[in-house]
Amino acid sequence: MLEKVDLSRKLDKEEYREKMAVLQTQLGKLQRECKELKIPVMITFEGYDAAGKGVQVGKLIEALDPRGFEVHAVKRETEEERMHPFMWRFWTKTPAKGRIAIFDTSWYRKVMIDRFDGETPEKEIADDFNSIRAFEKQLTDDGTVIVKLFLVIDKEEQKKRFKKLMKNKETAWRVTKEDLERNKHFKEFEKINEDMFGRTDTDYAPWHLIEAMDRRYATAKIYTVVINALTAAVEEARKGRKDEVNPGLKHDEFQVSALSKADLTKSLTKEEYTKSLEELQEKLARLHGELYRRRIPVVLGFEGWDAGGKGGAIKRLTQAMDPRGYVVNPTSAPNDVERSHQYLWRFWRAMPKAGHVAIFDRTWYGRVMVERLEGFCTMKEWQRAFKEINDMEQDLVNSGAIVLKFWMQIDKDEQAARFKARQENPEKQWKITDEDWRNREKWDQYEEAVNEMLLRTSTPQAPWIVVEGNDKYYARVKVLKTVVEVIEKRLKEEK
Amino acid sequence: MLEKVDLSRKLDKEEYREKMAVLQTQLGKLQRECKELKIPVMITFEGYDAAGKGVQVGKLIEALDPRGFEVHAVKRETEEERMHPFMWRFWTKTPAKGRIAIFDTSWYRKVMIDRFDGETPEKEIADDFNSIRAFEKQLTDDGTVIVKLFLVIDKEEQKKRFKKLMKNKETAWRVTKEDLERNKHFKEFEKINEDMFGRTDTDYAPWHLIEAMDRRYATAKIYTVVINALTAAVEEARKGRKDEVNPGLKHDEFQVSALSKADLTKSLTKEEYTKSLEELQEKLARLHGELYRRRIPVVLGFEGWDAGGKGGAIKRLTQAMDPRGYVVNPTSAPNDVERSHQYLWRFWRAMPKAGHVAIFDRTWYGRVMVERLEGFCTMKEWQRAFKEINDMEQDLVNSGAIVLKFWMQIDKDEQAARFKARQENPEKQWKITDEDWRNREKWDQYEEAVNEMLLRTSTPQAPWIVVEGNDKYYARVKVLKTVVEVIEKRLKEEK
Repeated sequence: MLEKVDLSRKLDKEEYREKMAVLQTQLGKLQRECKELKIPVMITFEGYDAAGKGVQVGKLIEALDPRGFEVHAVKRETEEERMHPFMWRFWTKTPAKGRIAIFDTSWYRKVMIDRFDGETPEKEIADDFNSIRAFEKQLTDDGTVIVKLFLVIDKEEQKKRFKKLMKNKETAWRVTKEDLERNKHFKEFEKINEDMFGRTDTDYAPWHLIEAMDRRYATAKIYTVVINALTAAVEEARKGRKDEVNPGLKHDEFQVSALSKADLTKSLTKEEYTKSLEELQEKLARLHGELYRRRIPVVLGFEGWDAGGKGGAIKRLTQAMDPRGYVVNPTSAPNDVERSHQYLWRFWRAMPKAGHVAIFDRTWYGRVMVERLEGFCTMKEWQRAFKEINDMEQDLVNSGAIVLKFWMQIDKDEQAARFKARQENPEKQWKITDEDWRNREKWDQYEEAVNEMLLRTSTPQAPWIVVEGNDKYYARVKVLKTVVEVIEKRLKEEK
Repeated sequence: MLEKVDLSRKLDKEEYREKMAVLQTQLGKLQRECKELKIPVMITFEGYDAAGKGVQVGKLIEALDPRGFEVHAVKRETEEERMHPFMWRFWTKTPAKGRIAIFDTSWYRKVMIDRFDGETPEKEIADDFNSIRAFEKQLTDDGTVIVKLFLVIDKEEQKKRFKKLMKNKETAWRVTKEDLERNKHFKEFEKINEDMFGRTDTDYAPWHLIEAMDRRYATAKIYTVVINALTAAVEEARKGRKDEVNPGLKHDEFQVSALSKADLTKSLTKEEYTKSLEELQEKLARLHGELYRRRIPVVLGFEGWDAGGKGGAIKRLTQAMDPRGYVVNPTSAPNDVERSHQYLWRFWRAMPKAGHVAIFDRTWYGRVMVERLEGFCTMKEWQRAFKEINDMEQDLVNSGAIVLKFWMQIDKDEQAARFKARQENPEKQWKITDEDWRNREKWDQYEEAVNEMLLRTSTPQAPWIVVEGNDKYYARVKVLKTVVEVIEKRLKEEK
């Protein structure tokens, strides 16, 4: 793409002033419209060093209401960020509906500057581009506008600007050895950028090249590009086209039946249980310390029928662990802030850093269960979700995490018995609500959705474990045992 | 995904007979509806060796009108196929609107069996999956239904079936050494398949696992899966939702201006021209033979303003080449057969085999020029097309091809002069039509679309060359010189 850019383009002062008066008014108005229509906007500034990214960010926000945007300057990863998947710091910074997030360099740093500098291993590049495409696809599918700007200057201009900066004591520090290296090998750096365009110039998030030799021309073009993108999004949102809501159940008997395979007669005696529990918890305590020392993050998700025994199993796990090293995240209906982001955002935020354990009592799989069945999302949304979830878990695994998902399986009779017991026990009555009874009526529909979920999202790197749960002793020991075995295997592999 | 399959499922004869009577009637009806609604359908049979793919294909077509489908048995690549990009043989076999194409194994062979057998280099795997995803995405975006079936049996059952085949003289040949090897290392093969599911189980073309231990169960399930997919497609088509037709022109002055950069005063004297032409044609003749010997395919696309000099430039190229080694493909409005396929299909069919040169007089770029501006495709379609075209050219380059695209640039005055000259010359009058004059009136709109096209689809591996064409001598020599230089560079690199 770079070769087709005409770097001679300019605007004189007079023309610039006239244009900008109009453009700034337009952009201000569009920001208000986006807020009203709840459109989230992300604008990224990428490009060559000394092309004027910082200056242009400053120019762009002149027209914006400061209560409606934030600017993120993307530097080297912090210690905290390095202990998470590479896209984590960007997922957590995605804007709420109606807000604008501006990035002064972005997620492209890793596949551009860091790649040129040799800091990004070539064997990771394909994975990195997958993560980036998945990120942009998921967000734009969810209604976010992503405007990607790339500021272009040529080799000579860059050299000139570097020299000018270096002459002045107060700005000399801004030119690094790496900057000069990239200027020296401009052609090679250009090749890396072309590869990046080829892999990420998509219809949902296209690149916009900004001719940045002339500051005024660049400013006016950036305004125009952003205005065009927001105008299109506003028009689209005004049409208010709604996708179909449809749980897409087939009710035929050829469905996958992972659940029906579970042998619910499995059980343990009290003695067996007590003995196993003690042994396994002792092991887990030791392993938990080892995980911490080796900086391996662990993600454990729990799903299952109401009264399926999630809470009991989680309790037996956490009893064995140092409370400074784990967090249990209970997941209920999303709150206002969560609802104003893409559905995976709240889970990204809760992902553990290296060496820590995050346990989820109910998870992101709500998208393909309750949201699918109750019509809280459209058919297209839950159909897309299988891949979106697999992509997220792949990002976690790529960053070194252990990811396990447990489905606590009981049969309908056992659930009835547990519901009854809860109602009769004054201390447990709070655990049972009208909603539980309503969900129970939809047992068959849930079963179909759960079976499809288990099939499509059980991967070798992030498997589902169906836990036979009619006998609580058996279920708790199976969960503990699985966690212990997977960690042991992993620690052995890494030695 | 494989782990969640319940291989114990069965159907007894009686139940099977009852079910099939209903399913066969349903499928027959759906085939007629798909024909009427012009929905193309692709059904692929993949899975373990001896899982019964051939038998199941036979069972499925029992319900189909034989005039409406074809079955493709995918074997090892033929000599001819090996001389094209890996997906070429499948692109050329995509069904016309309303027809069904059934594949007994498919494009997944390369990332499954061939990968396990070590015939697909691991460093190509990421590219192969990109090609596969692009293929399925482009076709489903265009309205094709893709049903991907994967037949599953377990290791023991496979061994048993192999033994039975080997016992009988007439079937023994069907079990190869490689088959036995894959049975022996069943777990490793399973891992390769899981990787494939992870990378290709998408919302637009999901995988369906078929439990194939029991032949009857598998048949009935395959019918059900196909019926569900076709029913959904028919319902969707009946809704007749139309995407917006909109050329999406912005008419602002910050557009890319690759065209305006062209210096149209460039020219050559008659003497310079004659001398250069002779030298370059001599070189090209020699290089053409070398390309043939080294089996390097070449794709040359020509676009430009009407009367821009495409024909003249192509003629000077072909004069230098052995006619057995090149084809010139003139591209006009698609005919009926071409219109009943995805728009890139006719170009895929014309792609050269290794060692041959294909020249296109007008190209697949019509999608983002005339089709965009005249409303022959929707806004979504032309927006997607940039990436689709880049994907196709990348496939060509990955297969070893040289890909160059020439834009013959003249200015509006020069065009007027040439139109006039044509009209006044009885021998050239046929070259000028009313449409040419109409197109001329839309010059500015075309210019905007062409500039965007040049920007988004000029890649280092398949660049656009803007040819300054006001002077015909200069233009012809520039085209020849570029072709010669690129070939020379390539031949040197490969030595």
